[in-house]
Amino acid sequence: MTTPLNYAQENQEKHLKQLKTFLQIPSVSTQPEHDADVAAAAQWLADSMQEAGLDNVQVIKTDGHPLIYADWLHAGADVPTVLIYGHYDVQPAEPFELWQTPPFEPTVRDNYVYARGSSDDKGQAFIHVKAVQAHLAANGRLPVNVKFIMEGEEESGGANLHAFIPENKELLQADVALVSDTAMISKDQPSIVYGLRGMCYLYMDITGPTRDLHSGSFGGGIDNPLNVLGHIIAKLKDENGRVLIPGFYDDVRDLSAAERAMLAEYNFDEAGWLAETGAPQAWGEPDYTLVERLGARPTLDVHGIIGGYTGPGGKTVLPSTVHCKLSMRLVPDQDPQKIAKAFKAYIQQIAPPTVTVEITGGHGAPATITDFDIPAMKAAATAYAETFGTEPVFMREGGSIPVVGQFQEHLGLETVLMGFGLPDDKIHAPNERFYLPNFFKGIETSIRFLDELGSSKK
Amino acid sequence: MTTPLNYAQENQEKHLKQLKTFLQIPSVSTQPEHDADVAAAAQWLADSMQEAGLDNVQVIKTDGHPLIYADWLHAGADVPTVLIYGHYDVQPAEPFELWQTPPFEPTVRDNYVYARGSSDDKGQAFIHVKAVQAHLAANGRLPVNVKFIMEGEEESGGANLHAFIPENKELLQADVALVSDTAMISKDQPSIVYGLRGMCYLYMDITGPTRDLHSGSFGGGIDNPLNVLGHIIAKLKDENGRVLIPGFYDDVRDLSAAERAMLAEYNFDEAGWLAETGAPQAWGEPDYTLVERLGARPTLDVHGIIGGYTGPGGKTVLPSTVHCKLSMRLVPDQDPQKIAKAFKAYIQQIAPPTVTVEITGGHGAPATITDFDIPAMKAAATAYAETFGTEPVFMREGGSIPVVGQFQEHLGLETVLMGFGLPDDKIHAPNERFYLPNFFKGIETSIRFLDELGSSKK
Repeated sequence: MTTPLNYAQENQEKHLKQLKTFLQIPSVSTQPEHDADVAAAAQWLADSMQEAGLDNVQVIKTDGHPLIYADWLHAGADVPTVLIYGHYDVQPAEPFELWQTPPFEPTVRDNYVYARGSSDDKGQAFIHVKAVQAHLAANGRLPVNVKFIMEGEEESGGANLHAFIPENKELLQADVALVSDTAMISKDQPSIVYGLRGMCYLYMDITGPTRDLHSGSFGGGIDNPLNVLGHIIAKLKDENGRVLIPGFYDDVRDLSAAERAMLAEYNFDEAGWLAETGAPQAWGEPDYTLVERLGARPTLDVHGIIGGYTGPGGKTVLPSTVHCKLSMRLVPDQDPQKIAKAFKAYIQQIAPPTVTVEITGGHGAPATITDFDIPAMKAAATAYAETFGTEPVFMREGGSIPVVGQFQEHLGLETVLMGFGLPDDKIHAPNERFYLPNFFKGIETSIRFLDELGSSKK
Repeated sequence: MTTPLNYAQENQEKHLKQLKTFLQIPSVSTQPEHDADVAAAAQWLADSMQEAGLDNVQVIKTDGHPLIYADWLHAGADVPTVLIYGHYDVQPAEPFELWQTPPFEPTVRDNYVYARGSSDDKGQAFIHVKAVQAHLAANGRLPVNVKFIMEGEEESGGANLHAFIPENKELLQADVALVSDTAMISKDQPSIVYGLRGMCYLYMDITGPTRDLHSGSFGGGIDNPLNVLGHIIAKLKDENGRVLIPGFYDDVRDLSAAERAMLAEYNFDEAGWLAETGAPQAWGEPDYTLVERLGARPTLDVHGIIGGYTGPGGKTVLPSTVHCKLSMRLVPDQDPQKIAKAFKAYIQQIAPPTVTVEITGGHGAPATITDFDIPAMKAAATAYAETFGTEPVFMREGGSIPVVGQFQEHLGLETVLMGFGLPDDKIHAPNERFYLPNFFKGIETSIRFLDELGSSKK
């Protein structure tokens, strides 16, 4: 008789082939020209859930991209119900010219599959579909009750899932949530994320003259929005990484001595991490370690600027407008809306009267922290240890997964963040990849997690 | 018997039609895809000189775009020789979507011809070809000896004319130079520019990590080139317009009390000038008047920035690189090379060790001042007064015409800057235009200037 683990091992080739098909669909949720692709990815994932043996598979229409729901609820009332979340949309793939192979032609090289979305998050989301399928194929049943909720707007703000959760509390009712959308410390060191940063994303447009002016005829007499933007950016964060917006740090929960000690303990490969970025040196607030700065400290980054003449050669223009995208990563207990308000008030204060500044956006999510003594966290730790042969460490992660905060707020759920990515997966960048051994071990870890969780009675 | 002025007046329609043909050629010298267009514009202009009756018309090959030379040297040794300069290349027309009619489909509306290059400088350069043609058609001769030198790289640095001048001193030998590439104060107030600002143009590329990073995973641990650029820009010029580069003002020649008094005298329409820019208010160094700041004070403007994600929606990228174009407008006696060196040294000093900064370019020209008591300036003043019915005023202009400094340095020539543009011609911007009455009056002024100059014996 085959076991779920045997089933997973025997079907690795097939699972990889399926993943590659999933990765071929350019489901870029922020770019309207990809709307049909996002819909196609949703349907593909729903079909795979149907094939896995899940019940009630539904592609749920929203005002934006669809949600996918599915469940299997026959494990009994005395075992927990786990709500599994993932997202099938991906980041834009630009700049295309920096990809070694095209972003939507998945290619295996050196045990990695290269494609946009391979690690973030299609590969990781698909792991749990395959784990559930392994249990059902081998045993005809699951050790726990399972619900899936998958979204297609994680990379574009997640507004429709955010609206769906409070309106569908009964449907989504569970005992714990499971999300795989993070990275392990390294190939050999599994880790479980217990803290995520939050985010507040903003768009800032600065306009001076209503048309581009000749910088010879007007320079020195009309203020220049590009120069103004420089002054504004310099006033947002100092050169040591301290954000200068009044009130920004008011609600930041200080790290306890115990947590700082724990974070200091695990063996973070700072040199390897730096080498992988190619930057000349690490950087940031001098009073915090790199691990603390990356996971437990808020920050502010400009993500894009375009303004003036950017074609070949020179043009002596004093431009009308400059566009700037930026976000602030938040930590407990900063409130994204309060931070957006503080940002806008500060810009009002520092922007000179020679320009008008328009600020839009402000979508965000609070930071989250999960108690790591709950049974599901212990089940995850055991599953990792058995699969990887090494006990996982608990860590904070610098990224943001807004749904974790929403599960907490509306469903009262703690979330287990069972990541199988790696720090050098190049998510959100050219040449994104997913380490294939982690794809296969991820399925095994998920299989064991469901078993472990099933033996921890409610 | 027809006179040159009669000839010009009788042929206005024909001259406008010819100008429109000239303006149809997209001779953008900085964009290699327009190389053939630049060559076509050169040939068109050379043909028009041939038709005007000039001798020795030559399209001269260079390492870049061609020069055009022509002359008429039969006026005798006792009258001056005037060297007439203009340029047939144009600025890039981007952003195309802001043009009311396409930039290379010349369109007449409300007595203006709208097209890229209409005012800067095809329309103004063509004026003198037509003035010479009027003299030759009416009288069979010119009152002075004339040489033309036209270039196709004014908007892209002018390197090949710069190299040509010192190697062809005999060919270009003259008594005075004449350039129409500036603006009058207003439709009703002709003006002669006696001072031009110089320029130093630079490209700055700032690189941090060697690839785009996820701002969640890396933000707070790796410095961000876009944030760094903000700090650098803020340190280049303060918010009142004072450039902060050490040594920048060392060689600036102070304005004399007499010159400040003269500049204060003419009736500059500050409110109309501001309204035309659409900016909320004028701006600049508080210790100088607007007229002084625009013509007689150096400044620094960022012309273009592109970096990070600039597509639709948001992307949380910590970008690898940002590109920035900027220039400094210079006044007597600042030296462009010395200024470029000071800029580079300062960036070395202020750029943090978290990034690498590459600075290229540095092409430039010194500022120039022409003595306004020389006979050619008086001839120009008389020609303007007779054509426009108003005495011209003498003014400084904020733009840069590098060739004026080169004529001074290599040929020992003073230059008369006989401008027929207007301040709201939108040169270097969408919807560039040229005021048609100034095109026709320009031809008349040039005809009278040649007569006046001919009567001022050498």
